[in-house]
Amino acid sequence: MPTQAEMKAALQAYVELFNAGNLDGLAELYAEDAVVEDPVGTPPQRGRAAVKEFYRAAMATGSRLQVVAPARGSHGNAAVLVFQVVLPNGARINVADVMTFNDDGKIASMRAHWGPEDVEGSLG
Amino acid sequence: MPTQAEMKAALQAYVELFNAGNLDGLAELYAEDAVVEDPVGTPPQRGRAAVKEFYRAAMATGSRLQVVAPARGSHGNAAVLVFQVVLPNGARINVADVMTFNDDGKIASMRAHWGPEDVEGSLG
Repeated sequence: MPTQAEMKAALQAYVELFNAGNLDGLAELYAEDAVVEDPVGTPPQRGRAAVKEFYRAAMATGSRLQVVAPARGSHGNAAVLVFQVVLPNGARINVADVMTFNDDGKIASMRAHWGPEDVEGSLG
Repeated sequence: MPTQAEMKAALQAYVELFNAGNLDGLAELYAEDAVVEDPVGTPPQRGRAAVKEFYRAAMATGSRLQVVAPARGSHGNAAVLVFQVVLPNGARINVADVMTFNDDGKIASMRAHWGPEDVEGSLG
């Protein structure tokens, strides 16, 4: 099981790789059988290939991720990233990603908590 | 299923009732069969009576809750409270509570994400 420090380092890398447009590097943070549910309540992406396509589309929006509070760890295999998605038009989405990790330190699952009322500004 | 606004109102009430030392009011936010895992990775409290005893002990520490970012909702039945626990000695614990709600708008489950490395200052 990864340490809290290892999980938080992965979360920091996640933000940096996303903002650098490094799709391959971002996908490598995930386990081969990773599951991504973004936002919570929508059909999940299953497997690294599907996850990668999800992030390809997300990066294409020109959005950036901005951390707004220190990541939270846990005694278990989970950590939480608290951030905003900043869209090119200046709109912001308040999000909390709950990530679980496998024994290799790869992200096994990601659940993004946000909804329509977490948007500040217009998505259009 | 409660709306995002209803879930966020419950989270705000949660903070206010905790800080007011209103144990009965806080317990009433929870479903009869609620499960609280605080922190994630430790044995959960099951049922409102056990949950109430958990909060009785938490309130007895003299700690206060301080919200540090807007609560996050979701399309589903979950919402996330991002806050610090402020201890009487000034130490702070960075926490994210993931709560799910039942159809009556009561908290069905709470999982508190924090660990030893999320403590700023000394717990002792």
